[in-house]
Amino acid sequence: MLTEQELNRACIVLVRARNPSNIGAAARAMHDFGFSALRVVNQFSPPFEGARSAVDAADVLKKAQVYATVAEAVADCTLVLGTTAVGERNLQHDLLPLSEAAPRVRSELRRDASARVALLFGSEKTGLSNEELSHCNGLLTIPMQQHEGVRHPSMNLGQAVAVCLYELVRDELVMDPVTNPAAPAPAEILDRLSTRLAEVLEKTEYTRRHPGSCDPAEVRRLVRRMGLNAEDAQIWMGMLRQVMWKLDG
Amino acid sequence: MLTEQELNRACIVLVRARNPSNIGAAARAMHDFGFSALRVVNQFSPPFEGARSAVDAADVLKKAQVYATVAEAVADCTLVLGTTAVGERNLQHDLLPLSEAAPRVRSELRRDASARVALLFGSEKTGLSNEELSHCNGLLTIPMQQHEGVRHPSMNLGQAVAVCLYELVRDELVMDPVTNPAAPAPAEILDRLSTRLAEVLEKTEYTRRHPGSCDPAEVRRLVRRMGLNAEDAQIWMGMLRQVMWKLDG
Repeated sequence: MLTEQELNRACIVLVRARNPSNIGAAARAMHDFGFSALRVVNQFSPPFEGARSAVDAADVLKKAQVYATVAEAVADCTLVLGTTAVGERNLQHDLLPLSEAAPRVRSELRRDASARVALLFGSEKTGLSNEELSHCNGLLTIPMQQHEGVRHPSMNLGQAVAVCLYELVRDELVMDPVTNPAAPAPAEILDRLSTRLAEVLEKTEYTRRHPGSCDPAEVRRLVRRMGLNAEDAQIWMGMLRQVMWKLDG
Repeated sequence: MLTEQELNRACIVLVRARNPSNIGAAARAMHDFGFSALRVVNQFSPPFEGARSAVDAADVLKKAQVYATVAEAVADCTLVLGTTAVGERNLQHDLLPLSEAAPRVRSELRRDASARVALLFGSEKTGLSNEELSHCNGLLTIPMQQHEGVRHPSMNLGQAVAVCLYELVRDELVMDPVTNPAAPAPAEILDRLSTRLAEVLEKTEYTRRHPGSCDPAEVRRLVRRMGLNAEDAQIWMGMLRQVMWKLDG
């Protein structure tokens, strides 16, 4: 698990974001995955107020910091990674797929309390410029499907932030799978159920019409394949008992 | 790699989505990660037209199918998984974190051409109802940060779809890391650079002031730590040569 302190030292830097709803979406993804340090680089006053309505993300937006330049926004960061679409630039940096960049980010965050990582996201239209990329130690990209005739694939800004942050905490936010609490039915109940089913098949003359599928072993396998839990097995027993009662009536 | 046919048999089912821009965002994420089968369940005419403007996702939206009920939308599917926020329901299904559900989806898609998987996403406000969940074989959730006092965390719909689809193809869309094409500088050049630097330090009397950091081995290590590629090493050589020339002049 990344600690709260480590998560707080991962800065999401939005460079020239134009759409307030994208700033809000980025803030919401940060909230969802436990990040708090939002930095916005905009030469003019950023389209910020419009984003403040983002549900759940009020805390992140309130603490957001505004910078005039990328250099200022990343000045205190010890690892600066730019996000880019493959093929978008003449790359002069190493480029890692997100899943390989994430462990580097985590190990830098864990190095010590002086470590601070910046993840840069460019504007919706143009991404990060070469000048902006020159402040980066490296680049990462979210692998996407190649579509014929499309040279510059790119993701929606809010979705790209969500996917990147998901990957950063993917193996961290451990969660135990919740399995159905009902215990599997014991074999004895399944045997009784098979017997009961065989009786119904006999009674309804299904057996006479489909002798092939009424071999006792076949019926037993059919019941086993239901994968019943103990509770559901009892329910099926009751249903079949009721059917027999009606057939006998 | 999931083949195109396999990707086409993974259906993204939006149930009672209210916001056209969310339908558009889901379609865009599908396009980004190579999915094509969008199904929309809305009792009344879905808020569809508003979404048609979604950049890049026109193909996905054009082929989208509309259903009145969940039952109809998943009728031809062999594995139906509902997405849910942890704690949102009294769970009566197994619940897997996304990263564990993804391999099951992929192996079902690969089983044979009759396999078809549905991933259900509920409405922005309420998620999937218990009735809707009853059509599912299992549930998956995107692990999120727990915030104090928040019982029902939930993600933005478009972001949730993006994260789920990213996870499905995460290990599939293989991409070779692009490493800086410049070869590392050979040791011989680094040695010459160290010598040249030592000359400059001597000439500028840095050596006299900081004798401790001017030991030849120290200078050599300093130069090694620059991690220079061959091209940059030549540039540094030229710079130092110029400095010496000016100092001698």
